[in-house]
Amino acid sequence: MKALVYHGPGHKEWEHAPDPKITDPTDVIVQVDTTTICGTDLHILKGDVPAVTQGRILGHEGVGTIIETGEAVTNLAVGNRVIISCITSCGSCSYCRQQLPAHCLNDEGTSGLGWIFGHLIDGTQAEYVRVPFAENSLHKLPEGVSDESAIMLCDILPTGFEIGVRNGRVKPGDVVAVIGAGPVGLAAMMTAGLYGASRIIAIDLDDNRVDQAKVFGATDAVNNGDAGWKDAVLAMTDGLGVDVAIEAVGVPATFHMATELVRPGGTVANVGVHGASVELRLQDLWIKDVAITTGLVSATTTPMLLRLVSQGKLTPEMFVSHRFTFDGILDAYDTFAQAAQTKALKVTISR
Amino acid sequence: MKALVYHGPGHKEWEHAPDPKITDPTDVIVQVDTTTICGTDLHILKGDVPAVTQGRILGHEGVGTIIETGEAVTNLAVGNRVIISCITSCGSCSYCRQQLPAHCLNDEGTSGLGWIFGHLIDGTQAEYVRVPFAENSLHKLPEGVSDESAIMLCDILPTGFEIGVRNGRVKPGDVVAVIGAGPVGLAAMMTAGLYGASRIIAIDLDDNRVDQAKVFGATDAVNNGDAGWKDAVLAMTDGLGVDVAIEAVGVPATFHMATELVRPGGTVANVGVHGASVELRLQDLWIKDVAITTGLVSATTTPMLLRLVSQGKLTPEMFVSHRFTFDGILDAYDTFAQAAQTKALKVTISR
Amino acid sequence: MKALVYHGPGHKEWEHAPDPKITDPTDVIVQVDTTTICGTDLHILKGDVPAVTQGRILGHEGVGTIIETGEAVTNLAVGNRVIISCITSCGSCSYCRQQLPAHCLNDEGTSGLGWIFGHLIDGTQAEYVRVPFAENSLHKLPEGVSDESAIMLCDILPTGFEIGVRNGRVKPGDVVAVIGAGPVGLAAMMTAGLYGASRIIAIDLDDNRVDQAKVFGATDAVNNGDAGWKDAVLAMTDGLGVDVAIEAVGVPATFHMATELVRPGGTVANVGVHGASVELRLQDLWIKDVAITTGLVSATTTPMLLRLVSQGKLTPEMFVSHRFTFDGILDAYDTFAQAAQTKALKVTISR
Amino acid sequence: MKALVYHGPGHKEWEHAPDPKITDPTDVIVQVDTTTICGTDLHILKGDVPAVTQGRILGHEGVGTIIETGEAVTNLAVGNRVIISCITSCGSCSYCRQQLPAHCLNDEGTSGLGWIFGHLIDGTQAEYVRVPFAENSLHKLPEGVSDESAIMLCDILPTGFEIGVRNGRVKPGDVVAVIGAGPVGLAAMMTAGLYGASRIIAIDLDDNRVDQAKVFGATDAVNNGDAGWKDAVLAMTDGLGVDVAIEAVGVPATFHMATELVRPGGTVANVGVHGASVELRLQDLWIKDVAITTGLVSATTTPMLLRLVSQGKLTPEMFVSHRFTFDGILDAYDTFAQAAQTKALKVTISR
Repeated sequence: MKALVYHGPGHKEWEHAPDPKITDPTDVIVQVDTTTICGTDLHILKGDVPAVTQGRILGHEGVGTIIETGEAVTNLAVGNRVIISCITSCGSCSYCRQQLPAHCLNDEGTSGLGWIFGHLIDGTQAEYVRVPFAENSLHKLPEGVSDESAIMLCDILPTGFEIGVRNGRVKPGDVVAVIGAGPVGLAAMMTAGLYGASRIIAIDLDDNRVDQAKVFGATDAVNNGDAGWKDAVLAMTDGLGVDVAIEAVGVPATFHMATELVRPGGTVANVGVHGASVELRLQDLWIKDVAITTGLVSATTTPMLLRLVSQGKLTPEMFVSHRFTFDGILDAYDTFAQAAQTKALKVTISR
Repeated sequence: MKALVYHGPGHKEWEHAPDPKITDPTDVIVQVDTTTICGTDLHILKGDVPAVTQGRILGHEGVGTIIETGEAVTNLAVGNRVIISCITSCGSCSYCRQQLPAHCLNDEGTSGLGWIFGHLIDGTQAEYVRVPFAENSLHKLPEGVSDESAIMLCDILPTGFEIGVRNGRVKPGDVVAVIGAGPVGLAAMMTAGLYGASRIIAIDLDDNRVDQAKVFGATDAVNNGDAGWKDAVLAMTDGLGVDVAIEAVGVPATFHMATELVRPGGTVANVGVHGASVELRLQDLWIKDVAITTGLVSATTTPMLLRLVSQGKLTPEMFVSHRFTFDGILDAYDTFAQAAQTKALKVTISR
Repeated sequence: MKALVYHGPGHKEWEHAPDPKITDPTDVIVQVDTTTICGTDLHILKGDVPAVTQGRILGHEGVGTIIETGEAVTNLAVGNRVIISCITSCGSCSYCRQQLPAHCLNDEGTSGLGWIFGHLIDGTQAEYVRVPFAENSLHKLPEGVSDESAIMLCDILPTGFEIGVRNGRVKPGDVVAVIGAGPVGLAAMMTAGLYGASRIIAIDLDDNRVDQAKVFGATDAVNNGDAGWKDAVLAMTDGLGVDVAIEAVGVPATFHMATELVRPGGTVANVGVHGASVELRLQDLWIKDVAITTGLVSATTTPMLLRLVSQGKLTPEMFVSHRFTFDGILDAYDTFAQAAQTKALKVTISR
Repeated sequence: MKALVYHGPGHKEWEHAPDPKITDPTDVIVQVDTTTICGTDLHILKGDVPAVTQGRILGHEGVGTIIETGEAVTNLAVGNRVIISCITSCGSCSYCRQQLPAHCLNDEGTSGLGWIFGHLIDGTQAEYVRVPFAENSLHKLPEGVSDESAIMLCDILPTGFEIGVRNGRVKPGDVVAVIGAGPVGLAAMMTAGLYGASRIIAIDLDDNRVDQAKVFGATDAVNNGDAGWKDAVLAMTDGLGVDVAIEAVGVPATFHMATELVRPGGTVANVGVHGASVELRLQDLWIKDVAITTGLVSATTTPMLLRLVSQGKLTPEMFVSHRFTFDGILDAYDTFAQAAQTKALKVTISR
């Protein structure tokens, strides 16, 4: 088969690779019909994730068709269309049993993470992929759900929902600020309505992005490059701050903004991937009754989100800005990496 | 009457002061039978709390007897023995309605806090005190509960429980670490069993204090001055960290310890009063699925804790290390301020 | 003033009555601008609620303008437009403190209920009404919210939401069946989306009502007079039943339907007012992991619902099917009582 | 091997049976070291559970040693001492993923239940047993936990805790009534303290049993054969009823008692196995804000309970009243079936 192989920082190739084989009775082999690229893949290519070694096939999102099943697999069959969750779940360790497979203890390495595709084992940016613990890590696709919708349920939509909206404890009537209107911020905005938010305020430095955010569910848009941005946000509340501030950028300045915007009793839900420490002003916050949450998606809500997609209550295919086929995957990477110019949100790469 | 009056940083006097009077129909006047001193009082005396102006009567904890009631007061009567909550609650603002009177919006100032005794209005270290919003801020004492038990329900026991144990989301079977074995840390240890913790690990630099902690409910004691203290704690877990780490000191080093000890999926509950920023290592924590919580006590659990005291399930009178009468209140302050030498936990000052 | 006075079973008059006066410092007097009629009022007129004595002014829903305030009232002022909650809350008893004023212990009688207007004290179907514990029982109306929207927040919308949707523990993705498409059933359907229900199935014996339900938020409609109605509902699930079944009729047959439709692990939320026992088939249900809930509205969610109305996320004015002025209140009763013919949902009576 | 085989109503034999064999890659074979008898086994022998066919080996509780593992089993090994959960969990169906394996959809039959041992497949009252989905259905025993403690974690202790205490939403300070002081009622009493109950009231018709209950955690005992029993219970509350009423008998009279004892806002948790309908007085209960819960144990709390046993916080070995070896298993049944005379609580049968 052909696959996108990592060859050290800055180097990747779409090249021939051995076909994957069943190695454990709980494995299945999936033919990848559609995959996509995540910001994490760009980090890996920069060399920021040392656990990824040369020769690794990248990618942790995919929609495909089962072509072979291990002998312990009874509820999945050849021919099933499936979503490949970005998180692999053994189903039996203490973290999987408490619905937190992001920290699955039976990963095939020593990371203590359920994220192994394109990280510790070969991933989904390939014609075929081996899926371990398949019954816990794949979701059958019902009729009528497109690959373009389904691919957003591998990672980005559950990330915005679980780590932003659910960790943020959004409840009916809440005013929610989402800082960062990139794909994961938009995923939080798209799903904040599932808990009845009354206002969803998109905050970003780019006017185009905050305007676009309204299509994804934001009710209000604020450019934090404007003087007075903070007062503008507070004016959308009772003056005391937002109920929930979701950080979806990953730098100290935006994290600090979140802690400034949140009202007493509120929550800061961090979704951004941070590369450095932040200053936490506990001299102000110790008395404020706030919760600050972090997390890697567990993707346990994928079946629920899929139900909402099936019913037309969520339409995540709108994330797809550019479409490629496998032989154009290097162009897809270029397009996604230069999102500021290409206005790429999510790119799909299909068979 | 006589009262302890603040006269600017470093100065206080037990002196004559005007008797308090009913000013609002929801007020009552309480004769103070027992009061105590809080670490916050020491901060005020250092000048750390500028909102406290000269001439203010200090103290926010008290047990007493009602001697006069305003005309809108119907459920309290002259002669009732009552606990004076450290938090005043109007009962009708949005924060009081959501059981978060720590942030009551009807405080008699502009602080946005329900803590007003000995801060924005005259306090409880006096022979008599005016209690605003009395029906929401006083708790009738049942027969058989001593003043010494009751005084611990004004602030310290609900603080340890609400901000440590409850914010920490302690659940049956959890391993809980409490960093800091001072009074508020001990209060967290005493109440962690209310949610069925399997182990309660007291961590402190003072061997005497960690040993004493076992009397208050700790199952294990670790001195964090010892090399290997962290491994010692992890060995009391499955190796991945504690479920809940309660910070009860208020300095950067102990806050950092809490974030290091907590397991993926766990909670850091900050109880300590911080005077400076801390470094939050989000480069490690963003992926760890942790919640960090802060807060000022709302004392909404005081009636529940009182029920447990009545039933003998909690015995907070054991916090009382030294006893004084009102005319010895200056000695009481000295004893409490020099806790390292005097081994004071809580001192009582009684009529 | 004039008021609708109860004169025993079957008898009521729109007649002169003494103007209400402030009797307690926490009272206010409200000029009623708009009121409405509840099914409970019809029950009272049949003589089903013996606690209502002759001479009582009826009505527990109202929107109006404050014309006088008691001396303990500080956060409300003459001229404020307000929603009169159907539930009166003292704000300080154990039930009010736990956000359950439906069972307020300081009612002005011995019922142990927070529902006292038009029941234990004079009500809102009058030109003026005395409101006890006003700061806890009135909600200021923001600019731009009409009386017709606001009047639905006194009782019916919070009832559908609190007792149907919230007690029913509706969560994102759930399939919710609402049995009974009368006003309160429709209120549950209108608010089930606040927790992200994927399907909301309206079930009723009247085709017109189930069709109308779709305007109020139902995604599907089933007539339970049709053979095969149950299979039709199950086909909208995975075959195992609905996540939440809301009973909004109040007779044994519909309650039984709810227990038959609910899946293992689901919830039956009873909203209907029952006049007789039901048979509960515990021989089948003991193993089924279900919760059955009941309740009287506490209306603690009125401020939150009001926020959603202000933001245009809820449009409860659509409940208003007929409009009257005070001198037409007897016609309003006739229209509401004969809803089957008049197709009345909610009728408003305005100044 | 030898095993206890069911031969139709009233008939059972301890006889030779074929040794169990691995049939699926996720199976293991366990040598049973200790088993016990459950009330359900007696029901089966009466013919009350038609799904149990002749030739079936009975028993769903066991502690043993692994002697063989299927090839998909990686986290369990020959020689491991294990608790056999009464509930078999596939780990991947929608119910197992939501921590409700009581309703596992991959049972080896058509029941929709995770209870299959001694019901749909051969059980644990045998020298050896095949355990399907072993990694999800077995719990490794740490050093120092006796078989007699461990055997109580298969069913009875998690049943009392999950279906009584947790479904009952016991919270710190609550007054809890447990109706029925048999083994499962005692298990609820033993674990109610894990959520900080202030009083645990044992109610039974047998003075010996209610007295014994105090050893298991009850703080108070009431004989409901006494006139005035209800007033006696209410006097242990504020007069309004208990927070949580746990029904642990399974007949209409005791269920009715639970609904009478519960306070407004409280919970009735049904644990009893019912064979007939009950009358539910909705004419009184519709307004009372109560929740009534039912359920079959999922045993998902067994690892947590095991942690508490390891730490000496729970001592379930005190349930063992009589001890037998396998060749005395028929005597064990007689002893357990005649508990009124023999005062049997739980009997153990060991290798």
